Amino acid sequence: MAQIVKPSTLPGFMELLPKEQILFNEMMDTIRKNFEKHGFLPIDTPAIEKSEVLLAKGGGETEKQIYRFTKGDTDMSLRFDLTVPLARYTVEHFNDLSFPFRRYHIGKVYRGEKAQKGRFREFYQCDIDTIGNEKLDILNDAEFPVVIYHTFKDLGFDDFTIRINNRKILKGFFESLNILDSVDVLRAVDKIDKIGREKVKEELCDNGIEEDIAVKIIDFILISGTNSEIFDALDRLEIDNEIFNEGLSELKQVVKYITEFAVPEKNFTVDLKIARGLDYYTGTVYETTLDNYSNVGSVCSGGRFDNLASYYTDKKLPGVGLSIGLSRLFYQLNEAKIIEAKKKSLIDLIVIPMTGFVDEAIKLVSKLRDGGINTIIYTEDAKIAKKFKYANALEVPYTLVVGENEVKTEKYALKDMVTGNQEELSLSEIISRIKEN
Amino acid sequence: MAQIVKPSTLPGFMELLPKEQILFNEMMDTIRKNFEKHGFLPIDTPAIEKSEVLLAKGGGETEKQIYRFTKGDTDMSLRFDLTVPLARYTVEHFNDLSFPFRRYHIGKVYRGEKAQKGRFREFYQCDIDTIGNEKLDILNDAEFPVVIYHTFKDLGFDDFTIRINNRKILKGFFESLNILDSVDVLRAVDKIDKIGREKVKEELCDNGIEEDIAVKIIDFILISGTNSEIFDALDRLEIDNEIFNEGLSELKQVVKYITEFAVPEKNFTVDLKIARGLDYYTGTVYETTLDNYSNVGSVCSGGRFDNLASYYTDKKLPGVGLSIGLSRLFYQLNEAKIIEAKKKSLIDLIVIPMTGFVDEAIKLVSKLRDGGINTIIYTEDAKIAKKFKYANALEVPYTLVVGENEVKTEKYALKDMVTGNQEELSLSEIISRIKEN
Repeated sequence: MAQIVKPSTLPGFMELLPKEQILFNEMMDTIRKNFEKHGFLPIDTPAIEKSEVLLAKGGGETEKQIYRFTKGDTDMSLRFDLTVPLARYTVEHFNDLSFPFRRYHIGKVYRGEKAQKGRFREFYQCDIDTIGNEKLDILNDAEFPVVIYHTFKDLGFDDFTIRINNRKILKGFFESLNILDSVDVLRAVDKIDKIGREKVKEELCDNGIEEDIAVKIIDFILISGTNSEIFDALDRLEIDNEIFNEGLSELKQVVKYITEFAVPEKNFTVDLKIARGLDYYTGTVYETTLDNYSNVGSVCSGGRFDNLASYYTDKKLPGVGLSIGLSRLFYQLNEAKIIEAKKKSLIDLIVIPMTGFVDEAIKLVSKLRDGGINTIIYTEDAKIAKKFKYANALEVPYTLVVGENEVKTEKYALKDMVTGNQEELSLSEIISRIKEN
Repeated sequence: MAQIVKPSTLPGFMELLPKEQILFNEMMDTIRKNFEKHGFLPIDTPAIEKSEVLLAKGGGETEKQIYRFTKGDTDMSLRFDLTVPLARYTVEHFNDLSFPFRRYHIGKVYRGEKAQKGRFREFYQCDIDTIGNEKLDILNDAEFPVVIYHTFKDLGFDDFTIRINNRKILKGFFESLNILDSVDVLRAVDKIDKIGREKVKEELCDNGIEEDIAVKIIDFILISGTNSEIFDALDRLEIDNEIFNEGLSELKQVVKYITEFAVPEKNFTVDLKIARGLDYYTGTVYETTLDNYSNVGSVCSGGRFDNLASYYTDKKLPGVGLSIGLSRLFYQLNEAKIIEAKKKSLIDLIVIPMTGFVDEAIKLVSKLRDGGINTIIYTEDAKIAKKFKYANALEVPYTLVVGENEVKTEKYALKDMVTGNQEELSLSEIISRIKEN
């Protein structure tokens, strides 16, 4: 006998019990269904890629967090997002794809971050992106909030807000204030919900911005109201900057389209504070928050980028996309007990044969499964009480015992495991009863 | 501008175009649906585990093929199958599980094998296993061929054969010939379909077996006929060995149950040649072959084992399970053009607005999606011919143009992209027409 090894997963890796996994899969199916309804096509790329490909862009944090190793002479890494693989995929298969290329990808990514509650080293991302060849119509920017809206509605949420902005508005506004390198400003602005007005002002001033300009910036990003009130306020500023006006015109168009797609104004709002990842997005940006659970943070974000794959090709591939961090979202919703599976068990029914009636029970089980009922037959040697306990532990809604009487009458006492009620039903009645629940 | 890196995947890693991915996902969904119908519950384990856990059993080939690396002080590896993670999972979560524990797991596994056609270093396995606590009824052995039968039927196959044997029959038979260490014999016997009778005889004799005994062994494993003819032949041998008789009795019981589960005899057969992996299975074993594509090899295999997790616990956890190597199966069926997706495109319809009719088209698209039609709206700046070409390239079955007339009459000319026919239909007629296809 070999020595016994203590079985455990690595820290920072999520693993669920079947009951939780059912809920997780239900959420993943809902997301996938919405992605498909909106006309995105599936791809699935290898989790391992050449390091030189994945790290073509380089950059500090990524390099530190990545799982990188060699096998033989090959330097390889686990993907840390689905966007770099998309860039590689789009260029590698360019001639076999049709543009706009609309793809969804649901898969695991890996980041060796410091392990902490709710942060995982392996997690699912659910991404959609539309990639154009050279150009891409602004309507695409409006489509992503529509997908988010339907997805979160189908996930069971009513109170969520999709926040929309356009990076060109910020960039142009800063230019109009003679701030040409806006990276530090954007970084400060992005924190206003977390650290507040005064701290942002301090940080701006520390970056060499005059106090009155800092106040102007803060007043600007805090402009609020309905979408049309915000647009009126922006118009009144009469900012004479081309980029600003381009951004404003795009944002107005996007908001108009989103409204036409029948997304209620309750669920989306222009928010000039939204800046997003600093060196990637170039136009429309999105973030989504759950109104009653602000501590959950942004549950879905994305935006427009000018060029997907400059590290792999000279072709210009503009795109727009978004990502749902499903593992983190699931973990937080599950911890807060906000979500519940539509079906607690994937098993509809357990059939329990009395001694001597296994053969008859098998025939019944076959017909139930053919009728679309997820059924198991319990034939282990155990007392009847233990068999019901098994059904309860798995939260199976129905059980049914097969004995002499049932075989004779072809009526079966279907037991509702929640109420304890029993009802004498025929095979076809059982199938309808379970299906209508 | 950074230097351009040539974008490519690592050799031995499968990656599909969306059109193929749709088919792959359809197969995966079919498998999953069948697993759930037969009452298996989902789990999903991390792809990375502690090396000491994954390699508790050790063993030459595994160690060589595994992707093993360190990050910080941690020695970790990518999983090479779903069975070792199942063993770890079952012991780690023992107190939270109900037994028999019926689980399915569809996920990627990693083996750094020599790259060759149809063999992948990252591939999907689709596993189901039922694990008992201390004991597990023989009915479970009969359930797995039933799942295989329904799965392959739903995958579109009629002509396949599930081959069933019981390792105890072989072990007991060899014992009756005074062969007590049967490992080498099993290994030789397992090859008879590949290398033929004479070569197996040679190999047996090389292993120190008398020629007349070798002939007896070969005659034994080649016993053929209907299942009852094979059983009659085995009965007539009157072998006085306890293990043999236990195995024969189990196999008879399993065949009886499979028949009661309504699996046609055409699709399953007792085959005494089936021996399977040498140190793992202890009772019932299965292999499945496609009758018309023998070169594809076994597409699904499994069996009964006495003890799942002896490296992690003293508890006895007998089980039975099977695995479908989906990536390999898909690759071979796709290469041989045996399979085709039920839906070639996941997009049902492309809506093309004429200039000035985008707003009206958006409203229509929303209603179509609400009606369950997977729809995209094409607003890129391009000639109409290019837009139809896009639809054809994606094999989208229907298109529809929205212009002044359509908006006025609320009737739309739905174009069937295969036949070229157009039909004037209302919104609700369009939804029914597309759904009935």
